[in-house]
Amino acid sequence: MKRIAIDMDDVLAKTTHVIIDRINQLVEKKYSYEELMSGNTSVKEEFYGHYLANNSFLWEPGFFENIPVNEDAVEVVKKLTEHYEVFIVSAATEFPNSLKEKIGWMEQYFPFITWKHIVFCGHKHMIQADYLIDDHEKNLHTFTGTPLLFTAPHNLHIHDFQRVNNWKEVEKLLLD
Amino acid sequence: MKRIAIDMDDVLAKTTHVIIDRINQLVEKKYSYEELMSGNTSVKEEFYGHYLANNSFLWEPGFFENIPVNEDAVEVVKKLTEHYEVFIVSAATEFPNSLKEKIGWMEQYFPFITWKHIVFCGHKHMIQADYLIDDHEKNLHTFTGTPLLFTAPHNLHIHDFQRVNNWKEVEKLLLD
Repeated sequence: MKRIAIDMDDVLAKTTHVIIDRINQLVEKKYSYEELMSGNTSVKEEFYGHYLANNSFLWEPGFFENIPVNEDAVEVVKKLTEHYEVFIVSAATEFPNSLKEKIGWMEQYFPFITWKHIVFCGHKHMIQADYLIDDHEKNLHTFTGTPLLFTAPHNLHIHDFQRVNNWKEVEKLLLD
Repeated sequence: MKRIAIDMDDVLAKTTHVIIDRINQLVEKKYSYEELMSGNTSVKEEFYGHYLANNSFLWEPGFFENIPVNEDAVEVVKKLTEHYEVFIVSAATEFPNSLKEKIGWMEQYFPFITWKHIVFCGHKHMIQADYLIDDHEKNLHTFTGTPLLFTAPHNLHIHDFQRVNNWKEVEKLLLD
């Protein structure tokens, strides 16, 4: 059975959506996910400037508890578990408060994936799998299997990997 | 640089010592680590019977916070980091309350190993490394590198792996 490693933030979970809400509150702006996806570089640079200066909320208790699940993620991951060994691999050890919250989040949305198949790490380069679905270039570059770049506003400029734009595309690629 | 994955409980941390204390309190007995290491099978069976019936404390907040560090572990792991890429890999996702506590424990005793090199998982068979130092047969059996069995009372009967009895022996094997 082939093994798939799947990232959480901005792959299973709509983390950037929640980050945008927080930044809008903190700097009194009205950035939107659609705007960041539009390719307007100056808006994006401005937003990520605010984000880098104001992201301490990532370390606060509660942040990772209430992130909406991505469209079609539950259904497609459920189907994947019928044909692959699925691991959830989240680079979360930087955020100690997030760890228990992420276990709870998985129980809420993906009860069919237990603690046995959840991995929290810093680097992902020691993960052995056939596929890695991730939104971060740094994780995909060192991966020894087939990397799949899951589209997010911060990776639109990356062209080094096969791209999947949403979970329907993952389904088509890995299950059809 | 070769990569070593190192387990936490009963390898870096004297977890069984603390478990014995808890069981002694719960069942009003006086088991000792030395007794469990002596090879007296009936005492051991009795102890692990009590343990299996009374181990809910493993899931309680605080349990993993105050476990003593193993003899020579800090010094030898420090030296290992100078010659190997060292990852700490703990099968801890079963115990959501332990995760933040284990990050704090690592910061306390092994501040030279950051969150970047800490991995929490259920199964360990997706970990890619040259060596795995672990006290559990189940983790070593599926490991694709060289497995090293770290002696603990529950693994004295295992003869399938190269054994290291303490951190001085690890030093001799991997650094001499």
